[in-house]
Amino acid sequence: MRVMSSIGKVFLVGAGPGDPDLLTVKASRLLADAEVVVHDRLVDPRVIELVNPQAEVVCVGKKGGRYGFPQQQIHALLVRRARSGQAVVRLKGGDPYLFGRGGEEALHLLSEGVPFEVVPGVSSAFAVPASAGIPLTQRRYSSTVAIVTGHQDPQADNAVRWDLLAEGAETLVVLMPLQNLRGIVSKLVLHGKPLDTPAAVIQSGTWREQRQVYSTLRDIVGRVEREQISSPALLIVGKVVELGELLGASSARGADEEPSLEIPKPAVNRS
Amino acid sequence: MRVMSSIGKVFLVGAGPGDPDLLTVKASRLLADAEVVVHDRLVDPRVIELVNPQAEVVCVGKKGGRYGFPQQQIHALLVRRARSGQAVVRLKGGDPYLFGRGGEEALHLLSEGVPFEVVPGVSSAFAVPASAGIPLTQRRYSSTVAIVTGHQDPQADNAVRWDLLAEGAETLVVLMPLQNLRGIVSKLVLHGKPLDTPAAVIQSGTWREQRQVYSTLRDIVGRVEREQISSPALLIVGKVVELGELLGASSARGADEEPSLEIPKPAVNRS
Repeated sequence: MRVMSSIGKVFLVGAGPGDPDLLTVKASRLLADAEVVVHDRLVDPRVIELVNPQAEVVCVGKKGGRYGFPQQQIHALLVRRARSGQAVVRLKGGDPYLFGRGGEEALHLLSEGVPFEVVPGVSSAFAVPASAGIPLTQRRYSSTVAIVTGHQDPQADNAVRWDLLAEGAETLVVLMPLQNLRGIVSKLVLHGKPLDTPAAVIQSGTWREQRQVYSTLRDIVGRVEREQISSPALLIVGKVVELGELLGASSARGADEEPSLEIPKPAVNRS
Repeated sequence: MRVMSSIGKVFLVGAGPGDPDLLTVKASRLLADAEVVVHDRLVDPRVIELVNPQAEVVCVGKKGGRYGFPQQQIHALLVRRARSGQAVVRLKGGDPYLFGRGGEEALHLLSEGVPFEVVPGVSSAFAVPASAGIPLTQRRYSSTVAIVTGHQDPQADNAVRWDLLAEGAETLVVLMPLQNLRGIVSKLVLHGKPLDTPAAVIQSGTWREQRQVYSTLRDIVGRVEREQISSPALLIVGKVVELGELLGASSARGADEEPSLEIPKPAVNRS
């Protein structure tokens, strides 16, 4: 008699932008029950604290968009752990299917016959702007949002068409923009975005260290340099950025502030 | 002595795409503690079931993109309830700042001096494609995603630039596409998207009633008509749709299926 080992399952899970309160209910449950968690460097440490203390936790960290572990090694690790019968949570910043390489990992698992499931997360692409008071769409301001990455696979045939997006996308969100910020801004201006188009860069959105700069295409590069904004960051270009200056102070919350429904005590006015 | 009434707070909360498991931890806590919940029609009934049973629940429903309650009336309701000292959850399908008119409501609350806070949610724009196995980005397939609405404010100066998006957006997500589906497809083809570009329409993504059609720009209108796909729906155009046909069966789950980390029992092979 030969007993074949059971096969586990891989959950490709979005960790959201940082703040553990923005995990989904399902992600939170999966982390608490996981046997193995394989995560990127850009997952907030407060999220890792929620992982089942008995679980094996592997950071396959990347830095500045470059991989710590080669992707093949991540694939092999996921397959190996699942084949040993474990429940594997593959945890990715934001959403796994939006610039998370989740599709590649899913295809690999499929080709190896390993069961998997995708659990969407809150993407940094809109939660980070929201944390700075910036809605991506707004009536009369913008009804077209484009999301691109500033770091491209150098082998990509599909270069970002900055020439078309300059006028085609009223709101443009660029993930990981810092390395090519000057080039991106120049291309947008060259292809028709006015120099006074509002632009913001947000560093570490929803993390404790969040900082942001509201500016315009004309001045954003200088402002980012002067204020020493660093990665991870996100660039937003478009009229909606103006709203951030209004709404940011009211809607943004310090990450340290306890979320609560407590209502301020009645003001008692003696007269 | 005059006791002034305390002022409450409005939470602009994303309800996610439907499945209550895709609520954020914070949204889930706010719903359980809310005193008033003001929600759109496109919030899944299973989410409404999670609301504090003592809370007042008001549906300000819209149908097919048209508003049940005029926006002004929604604004007035939020302000009134907050001024009476209540904790108000304004619950919106998906994310409040991505086609949710959350920005308008935030501006109104700001102008009235009512405290508010934005709680991002999982947007249907990528969670619904994910539920049909479609990643919005994929190396060598797509690194540019554009999200637009098929229903435009008729007063908008900012018409969607289909002419630029046709070649500028490798992945195009159109929310509420059905009313203008033929027109949208024609414009994309006219401006350079090949007729054999993969395209999918997903109805009621992540809801119990989810259905989807994978096709191409050439055939999508006919397929949607034949299969009587109806609103709410979402259109995705781009090479990533091909992946959905591969990954969909594996990664999509029935909404009735209990999410679980249970591992299939070992297969015992007697030989």
